[in-house]
Amino acid sequence: MSGEHDLPPSPIFATVDFERDGAQHGFLRLPYSRDDSAWGSVLTPITVVKNGDGPTALLTGGNHGDEYEGPIALFDLARSLAPDAVTGRVIIVPALNYPAFRAGTRTSPIDRGNLNRSFPGSPTGTPTQKIADYVTRVLLPKAHYVLDFHSGGKTLDFLPFAAAHILDDKAQEAACFAAVEAFGAPYSVKMLEIDAVGMFDTTAEERGKVFVTTELGGGGSATARSVGIARRGIDGFLKHAGILSDPAEIRPTRWLDMPGADCFTFSEIDGLFEPLVDLGDSVTKGQKIARAWPVDRTGVEPFEFWAKMDGVLAARHFPGLVKAGDCVSVIGVLED
Amino acid sequence: MSGEHDLPPSPIFATVDFERDGAQHGFLRLPYSRDDSAWGSVLTPITVVKNGDGPTALLTGGNHGDEYEGPIALFDLARSLAPDAVTGRVIIVPALNYPAFRAGTRTSPIDRGNLNRSFPGSPTGTPTQKIADYVTRVLLPKAHYVLDFHSGGKTLDFLPFAAAHILDDKAQEAACFAAVEAFGAPYSVKMLEIDAVGMFDTTAEERGKVFVTTELGGGGSATARSVGIARRGIDGFLKHAGILSDPAEIRPTRWLDMPGADCFTFSEIDGLFEPLVDLGDSVTKGQKIARAWPVDRTGVEPFEFWAKMDGVLAARHFPGLVKAGDCVSVIGVLED
Amino acid sequence: MSGEHDLPPSPIFATVDFERDGAQHGFLRLPYSRDDSAWGSVLTPITVVKNGDGPTALLTGGNHGDEYEGPIALFDLARSLAPDAVTGRVIIVPALNYPAFRAGTRTSPIDRGNLNRSFPGSPTGTPTQKIADYVTRVLLPKAHYVLDFHSGGKTLDFLPFAAAHILDDKAQEAACFAAVEAFGAPYSVKMLEIDAVGMFDTTAEERGKVFVTTELGGGGSATARSVGIARRGIDGFLKHAGILSDPAEIRPTRWLDMPGADCFTFSEIDGLFEPLVDLGDSVTKGQKIARAWPVDRTGVEPFEFWAKMDGVLAARHFPGLVKAGDCVSVIGVLED
Amino acid sequence: MSGEHDLPPSPIFATVDFERDGAQHGFLRLPYSRDDSAWGSVLTPITVVKNGDGPTALLTGGNHGDEYEGPIALFDLARSLAPDAVTGRVIIVPALNYPAFRAGTRTSPIDRGNLNRSFPGSPTGTPTQKIADYVTRVLLPKAHYVLDFHSGGKTLDFLPFAAAHILDDKAQEAACFAAVEAFGAPYSVKMLEIDAVGMFDTTAEERGKVFVTTELGGGGSATARSVGIARRGIDGFLKHAGILSDPAEIRPTRWLDMPGADCFTFSEIDGLFEPLVDLGDSVTKGQKIARAWPVDRTGVEPFEFWAKMDGVLAARHFPGLVKAGDCVSVIGVLED
Amino acid sequence: MSGEHDLPPSPIFATVDFERDGAQHGFLRLPYSRDDSAWGSVLTPITVVKNGDGPTALLTGGNHGDEYEGPIALFDLARSLAPDAVTGRVIIVPALNYPAFRAGTRTSPIDRGNLNRSFPGSPTGTPTQKIADYVTRVLLPKAHYVLDFHSGGKTLDFLPFAAAHILDDKAQEAACFAAVEAFGAPYSVKMLEIDAVGMFDTTAEERGKVFVTTELGGGGSATARSVGIARRGIDGFLKHAGILSDPAEIRPTRWLDMPGADCFTFSEIDGLFEPLVDLGDSVTKGQKIARAWPVDRTGVEPFEFWAKMDGVLAARHFPGLVKAGDCVSVIGVLED
Amino acid sequence: MSGEHDLPPSPIFATVDFERDGAQHGFLRLPYSRDDSAWGSVLTPITVVKNGDGPTALLTGGNHGDEYEGPIALFDLARSLAPDAVTGRVIIVPALNYPAFRAGTRTSPIDRGNLNRSFPGSPTGTPTQKIADYVTRVLLPKAHYVLDFHSGGKTLDFLPFAAAHILDDKAQEAACFAAVEAFGAPYSVKMLEIDAVGMFDTTAEERGKVFVTTELGGGGSATARSVGIARRGIDGFLKHAGILSDPAEIRPTRWLDMPGADCFTFSEIDGLFEPLVDLGDSVTKGQKIARAWPVDRTGVEPFEFWAKMDGVLAARHFPGLVKAGDCVSVIGVLED
Repeated sequence: MSGEHDLPPSPIFATVDFERDGAQHGFLRLPYSRDDSAWGSVLTPITVVKNGDGPTALLTGGNHGDEYEGPIALFDLARSLAPDAVTGRVIIVPALNYPAFRAGTRTSPIDRGNLNRSFPGSPTGTPTQKIADYVTRVLLPKAHYVLDFHSGGKTLDFLPFAAAHILDDKAQEAACFAAVEAFGAPYSVKMLEIDAVGMFDTTAEERGKVFVTTELGGGGSATARSVGIARRGIDGFLKHAGILSDPAEIRPTRWLDMPGADCFTFSEIDGLFEPLVDLGDSVTKGQKIARAWPVDRTGVEPFEFWAKMDGVLAARHFPGLVKAGDCVSVIGVLED
Repeated sequence: MSGEHDLPPSPIFATVDFERDGAQHGFLRLPYSRDDSAWGSVLTPITVVKNGDGPTALLTGGNHGDEYEGPIALFDLARSLAPDAVTGRVIIVPALNYPAFRAGTRTSPIDRGNLNRSFPGSPTGTPTQKIADYVTRVLLPKAHYVLDFHSGGKTLDFLPFAAAHILDDKAQEAACFAAVEAFGAPYSVKMLEIDAVGMFDTTAEERGKVFVTTELGGGGSATARSVGIARRGIDGFLKHAGILSDPAEIRPTRWLDMPGADCFTFSEIDGLFEPLVDLGDSVTKGQKIARAWPVDRTGVEPFEFWAKMDGVLAARHFPGLVKAGDCVSVIGVLED
Repeated sequence: MSGEHDLPPSPIFATVDFERDGAQHGFLRLPYSRDDSAWGSVLTPITVVKNGDGPTALLTGGNHGDEYEGPIALFDLARSLAPDAVTGRVIIVPALNYPAFRAGTRTSPIDRGNLNRSFPGSPTGTPTQKIADYVTRVLLPKAHYVLDFHSGGKTLDFLPFAAAHILDDKAQEAACFAAVEAFGAPYSVKMLEIDAVGMFDTTAEERGKVFVTTELGGGGSATARSVGIARRGIDGFLKHAGILSDPAEIRPTRWLDMPGADCFTFSEIDGLFEPLVDLGDSVTKGQKIARAWPVDRTGVEPFEFWAKMDGVLAARHFPGLVKAGDCVSVIGVLED
Repeated sequence: MSGEHDLPPSPIFATVDFERDGAQHGFLRLPYSRDDSAWGSVLTPITVVKNGDGPTALLTGGNHGDEYEGPIALFDLARSLAPDAVTGRVIIVPALNYPAFRAGTRTSPIDRGNLNRSFPGSPTGTPTQKIADYVTRVLLPKAHYVLDFHSGGKTLDFLPFAAAHILDDKAQEAACFAAVEAFGAPYSVKMLEIDAVGMFDTTAEERGKVFVTTELGGGGSATARSVGIARRGIDGFLKHAGILSDPAEIRPTRWLDMPGADCFTFSEIDGLFEPLVDLGDSVTKGQKIARAWPVDRTGVEPFEFWAKMDGVLAARHFPGLVKAGDCVSVIGVLED
Repeated sequence: MSGEHDLPPSPIFATVDFERDGAQHGFLRLPYSRDDSAWGSVLTPITVVKNGDGPTALLTGGNHGDEYEGPIALFDLARSLAPDAVTGRVIIVPALNYPAFRAGTRTSPIDRGNLNRSFPGSPTGTPTQKIADYVTRVLLPKAHYVLDFHSGGKTLDFLPFAAAHILDDKAQEAACFAAVEAFGAPYSVKMLEIDAVGMFDTTAEERGKVFVTTELGGGGSATARSVGIARRGIDGFLKHAGILSDPAEIRPTRWLDMPGADCFTFSEIDGLFEPLVDLGDSVTKGQKIARAWPVDRTGVEPFEFWAKMDGVLAARHFPGLVKAGDCVSVIGVLED
Repeated sequence: MSGEHDLPPSPIFATVDFERDGAQHGFLRLPYSRDDSAWGSVLTPITVVKNGDGPTALLTGGNHGDEYEGPIALFDLARSLAPDAVTGRVIIVPALNYPAFRAGTRTSPIDRGNLNRSFPGSPTGTPTQKIADYVTRVLLPKAHYVLDFHSGGKTLDFLPFAAAHILDDKAQEAACFAAVEAFGAPYSVKMLEIDAVGMFDTTAEERGKVFVTTELGGGGSATARSVGIARRGIDGFLKHAGILSDPAEIRPTRWLDMPGADCFTFSEIDGLFEPLVDLGDSVTKGQKIARAWPVDRTGVEPFEFWAKMDGVLAARHFPGLVKAGDCVSVIGVLED
């Protein structure tokens, strides 16, 4: 974090006034000169709802552009959240990597940037890095609570869960887990991040924020049920933060653990993917959980994937075809 | 159908002998000269399992390249079906529009051909038309029973059903519906085809075949459950045909009707798609069933879709983004 | 035209009722199944404004997708034309090759179809051919007057003119030229079509319609001035047709002739295009009118283009680079 | 061939006068309207060298756009052939499918047309079909002798040979074989065409021409040696035709036979291609001639290809990677 | 600028000798290894005309690849400038970002580099950065006067002007403005650069050069008139520098001011762009100056753009379609 | 090399244990999140064959993805090398830039990285830079002998040679040249690297390894002969290193010198490439060695290339078309 204050200012300009009471709908304007617009820009929609003093929550969707529960719930919230229902401030960016969101792709079509690997970002880098930098240096300092929505995207599918990270600062960690519980997803996860380089999560946590993330489904789609989880989660999160006034309704959640490398199975071949268990199904160590069929001929044996531990199927490869190197399944362990 | 016999022979060559007893795994070789292979060809895997006299079933998957229950079940069957379990012949083509299947796309990347709109095909046309022609003039004449697998593909999702068409020849129609019942999907549909131009279905039915089609899921993925439906359906279909010897286990099915244009809802805008009901949910006329959110700004109202009739949600748009012109939902009516 | 009545019906469905009085805004829905929408369609906006009995005018823009005066004037007209100002009917399709218009390209990105070379079209062909067929068999039979807007598009620039063709039926021809005069563009042209294959113009003229076309500018842009010409032209055309009631204001026009092959100059090299005269400038036979500079080195002579006749520069190549085979200039002769 | 005279005229315009004595360099101009040139055209270079009465030879290269011996020798001939050296006429088109030649691809980048499968062509079809039609209806009627250059292109490599077809008309066949002998390539082939649909060869032969084709190398390259074969072959061919006056120098050739389907070996897998014999090497039936290595892992056995007959390796797959369906080798038999 | 001397030498090699008297035409050779040329390079044409001692002018076009007045005038100058007309040296690079110029795009197709945001560049970076570095470290040190041509490119159109920047060093600033006046464009601008990061302008000015830039039109095209402005501007500039000997003819210019953010209007929607005023037209604050029409349906209101100040329309969006974020207009204020 | 130890660990994980005796086939797994696989990875095949103590040889192919002798010989070796034939360890990576190898391209389709210009690499950079970093920091420290296979790729063709660099450390240099001699290619080269930035060679040499590289052919293909050279070269190299036990068979080699810039000829035009001498042919200074024909018209002179020195043709441009800036030929001098 050293040196951050020596950076040039962000090139992104907000058309909303973060300090003004009321509900404002505007844009984050990022100049982006390119072949089809010499003086063009990227306009990322943003809503600020503020009412007097109080905590600020930053709610973001579309960090990856093909994950939909967050954007749906946040476009809805942005339209409907009345200032007088709020104590403090809610900053809503439903589609944070906006070019990726418009393209329906995980990464940005402009620069192939994976936003969640681009933090803390740079004001002089690619457009994706400029977005990360703006979040880091402009939005995060205003926020006390941060909720960043994820789902599996087009290539993964998840049991719906909210999550926070195991942190060195145990008081912060406890605050984060309490916010996860308030979110009230069907499942909740305490994550030990192995590879935190470039993540929004890490950047927010290092700055002491109460940070909650989610995985609410996947496949590049959303269902009425999964959107409902997102919507109720926002409600619980904002009530927990004291920004919405009613006490949060308690919704039960099951804590799910992903204890280590044995949770994950990767494919070593290209083929036709056949799941043998579905999300939420129990599996036992040694159980065959999926197969990959060679597609260049008939009459040959499939490649088989076995569970390396007991648990439930918590995530899986989504597309019908699988490539060598793809993650095919994640097994989680339910806490008692 | 007139003039069919004046056509030049198909350029496709089968490396299997359809008249030989036993199990053979081979290819349909379609010469395809192109920039990256002057004397190249498309090799579509095919399996023939034959045992003495008896009826022939033609089983096809991958008519559209992004629909997976059929290919999974058929690659599995091709590997495991023992000749001595068969009376007659089973011809298995797990991935009929093979270039589309390899690309994971509905249509062929070679010629953008939609195989199920290319029948009866042509021996001198595009590769997709040559495949259709080969099916029409070589495979169909050998078959008595035809089972062609479909699912929703990457852009639609369906309640799982098998189906046959309402036909002028009521005896043929009854034979087809009996085969649908033997397939034993959770749902079964009697379809009145409005626009039959170019379909495999029509081509097979005009030639008097017992023809069954399916829609077993969608989203460009498959689940353990949906693959199970396909696998059990093949078993029931082949037993019904007398090709497998055990009597088919009776699995209950619910007949689902799609009585007219009011079943279908189309979007008139581009936006972020929010389903308000899920597949199988009951809906009543006038109920709001989905919304599409403008994505270029926050703070605006969504476009809303209402049910035009009572029923259950039988199919829906799958991707998180919707485009003007897309079908967003299909409502079906359950028979008592 | 023989055999036209044996064709299957158009797959295009109009959401407007052409026979209903009042102003209706709707779509021509063309089913278009594709990889990113299995049950998708193309929705081409259409407006019908009808008031009692009287003639019907069909007004179309976007026949080529990168020509803008027509679409601007017609979107404006569609929004503002009040039914009670009309006697008869006005059918407005501002962007006829809608996929091309959305892409900003001359031809359709779907099938690379040049709509104005796809007439009379086919109900079973490509999407572009289906649009042409719908115009031919559904819209044209309703129309007495047809005005189809063109400009130069991204690669040509024109002096603004309206035009009609020299026809065998001299009464029809006179009616067309009278309508051109009523349009009142700065220039007017009597065209002798050499190669009429596939044109909307020919299809409409063969069916006896009063047909006017235009070239109102180019470069893939429009100006306040060029849009004004289109807007005033529509007004004059509809008043001439008796559909709008006020008498048309008389605007002077200059008749411009393009008498033969010597009008046209084509490049035989690739290079950097340097115009030596601008649109409307007088040129004399033998005058140097443009140059093309080789771009792979400095110090070499440019390729030079000379006027093959006296006249004014009526059209020119627009982009800064020119390719061998491009039309670089068209010279017209002003009538006295 | 019936109905040919009912076709509309070719849209292609030649800037050379085929009946004028002397050497002319010009273009075949094919109008080609497209997004990047509304009134653009394809300009295919052509040279006509004529001197009084006598036979006409039509010499063509670039039928496939990635085969280079013909174009090199013909651009050189076009520049250097003096009219007074000629008796009769030589028509030279060094790059017949000009868009393919410019792109360095077998087929046309404009329409993916394989020119040698597009004959006799159509004046209203794709650009490639229009070129074929122009050759069929304009150039071929002027010619007595036709020499069409081929090589293996980017994906095949050949022993250098000239060839003619076995024909029903034995006098024509003998004339063709005599011309092959006059060409004097290191190898000469008598071809029995199985699948003659769409070929220039067939179209020319059906019209009674003395037609010679070649395969002079491949890999999308040329060598000093292979260009020399082409250059000397043209010389021999034109002297044989009586168009050049000196008697042709006799160069020995070896006749090579490709007697049937056993000559050809196709790959059934994708992999890394390892040739075990080189062009011209002798092989015996059962000899391992090539291997294909799976590339997704080490430690597995390669797929092996065996000679199905005795002979010499006459052609082979060129690129380092091979795809299922590719032709990997052709074995020829040397005549005694 | 610190550390500049520690950099490795530029990989670019000039085939001209900058110190030799006379006119030389050559290349800047930049090694560029890539898939289609392992040992390839980019050859940017350059001309040096030198005659004894005297000042050096560096004249550059094609900094952006779709701006044409500069390249046309400079290819012409390179061919025609006689050494004996010169006192000192003129270095001419008509197409500085040569890959972009060949592609006709603002940025480089190789690396998507915007050259005018890549200064001072890097000898180990992308090809675009290597070009910038060569200019900075090799060409600029030789130059006293620098003239870098710009126009609006394919997406903007400008009133023709030359310009220099408001600088801290008022003597340098005065020298620059004097050179602008000598250029003698119809309009002249004193620019206060807000965001100077990466510009050629800044790099040259920091090194004390007399630097003039231009905007001479746009739309990706040029006219006889706009090329004439460029040609006369070069003449005036070189005479002002004392490199050409005749005194410069005085051409009147009007000084145009762009005083602040209110000059610029950006679109917040995608749509069909309708200009309501043209370049050079006077506008008053609050005047409607353009509209953007939604294109997905008829019958809706357009989005309207108003002038935020009095002035003249100095620049505008060019393409017929506009995207959210695009600059739609720039208003300038004429000095008395 | 300073600071290397401060870098984060490589993200690449090897599934083989480099310290275990025996033959292991596994993967280098490089996490690579992307649109089509959120949790995907690149799996580069690797084989380790170890037997007790002794030196380690690192054998790599596919540094550039379109060069095939190395990969063929190394996939073969990986499958067949028995542990008990080895003293020490052999690490085999047949396709080091695996994404490039799968695509058949020089550079990586993922990031366009040229691996041999990406050393020493970075653990946080592009996938290509991560591969380079893994080689530098994980594989190289284990190795004493390094053999990195190259050929000309799709765009160059070479006389077959092995080579090492002239080094400051003459003992190391002598060790390298001895290993080149042991490789026993038909030709051997002592290279003076002018531009060593980013090369594997330099990185290995700086770390004191015995490093041998090759150029064994080209054109994006391999022959039985050129693969034989690679196979025998490995054998000689490993015997020389003492890893294989039999003494190396002595194969004669000819030393070839490339003494300076006059060896290399570059094209200044685009055109059709005609070689006038073939690889291995003797040339004399001033001899015409190749031509490039303009392809936009017939009847013009070709551009000619002359030898700037005496020698033999050691390398040449391969594709039939040449572009300005391409290297067209390299002349070498045979040592006596």
